[in-house]
Amino acid sequence: MKLLEDGVPLAEISIERVARTAGVGKATIYRRWSGREELFCDVLRAAEPPGPELPGTSTRDDLIALLEAQRRRGLATRSSAIVHNVLAQMKSSPKLWKAYHVNVVEPQRRLTTEVLRRGQEDGEIRTGLDLELIADLFHGPMLVRTVMRRDADLPDDLAEVIVDTVLEGLRPSGS
Amino acid sequence: MKLLEDGVPLAEISIERVARTAGVGKATIYRRWSGREELFCDVLRAAEPPGPELPGTSTRDDLIALLEAQRRRGLATRSSAIVHNVLAQMKSSPKLWKAYHVNVVEPQRRLTTEVLRRGQEDGEIRTGLDLELIADLFHGPMLVRTVMRRDADLPDDLAEVIVDTVLEGLRPSGS
Repeated sequence: MKLLEDGVPLAEISIERVARTAGVGKATIYRRWSGREELFCDVLRAAEPPGPELPGTSTRDDLIALLEAQRRRGLATRSSAIVHNVLAQMKSSPKLWKAYHVNVVEPQRRLTTEVLRRGQEDGEIRTGLDLELIADLFHGPMLVRTVMRRDADLPDDLAEVIVDTVLEGLRPSGS
Repeated sequence: MKLLEDGVPLAEISIERVARTAGVGKATIYRRWSGREELFCDVLRAAEPPGPELPGTSTRDDLIALLEAQRRRGLATRSSAIVHNVLAQMKSSPKLWKAYHVNVVEPQRRLTTEVLRRGQEDGEIRTGLDLELIADLFHGPMLVRTVMRRDADLPDDLAEVIVDTVLEGLRPSGS
């Protein structure tokens, strides 16, 4: 974190340099992280807001918690220069980007799929639809605003509005 | 196009070089394009599949046509090295990326907003919801698959499934 705060690019941060900056031996670092990729992922996880606590009261409430966590990560990427820079640098390295996906993105995706599967079991979500597609219907609109259109509005109630609208559909009621 | 097919990076393609390659004077180029940015946008438009013809039979049909055009652009980006490379290079230049947004992305977005506004007037879409948000609910899931997750499935019926599911909602019918 100190190196990143000092503006050192990821490419110049080796395990050796981390150990030297922390005043420990390389073996101490390798005891916790198998390499730079895993270490940078943990740095991001520490700098980003924590993952969601699922209330478990309903599928709707769990989905809102998941999308709200996504919105907060989007806000952090806008407000924290470190999160923004580390993410941008990871994107330009296929190896780092893959590690980020395996360690951060995919666990979040599995959590959403799990919530949706339970929602189908509990009768809150229609069955017969692909869970991957349903996950995209909820997360897609939020991702577009947090990741692709950095100037898009992220109002406080965005997670709730997206979840309720996708659940209820856009047809006028009664039709 | 010839220069791009030869693998010349965008940064090395000046109006002068285009004119020389085409065997015309610079003035001939400037008569049609005000600068490199506009010229590259037209190159992309020529290489990408054409924009959608809206059938105008219903809001649903128009939305499917809009999303199908988006899916075809996604397939072209995967299959055409030129589209893929030009897009990637435009993304890394703020000036080119802005020109792409103004000339290509925003007109498509305005078209969607127009279709949705008519849908509200015709009673096919609920009123009281922000049109920008509704546009994201339809385009977001497709964008995630075409732009962000390049290995995601883009099956033939994807546009139709997204439009129908977002229109009808995810609650089980009758609840």
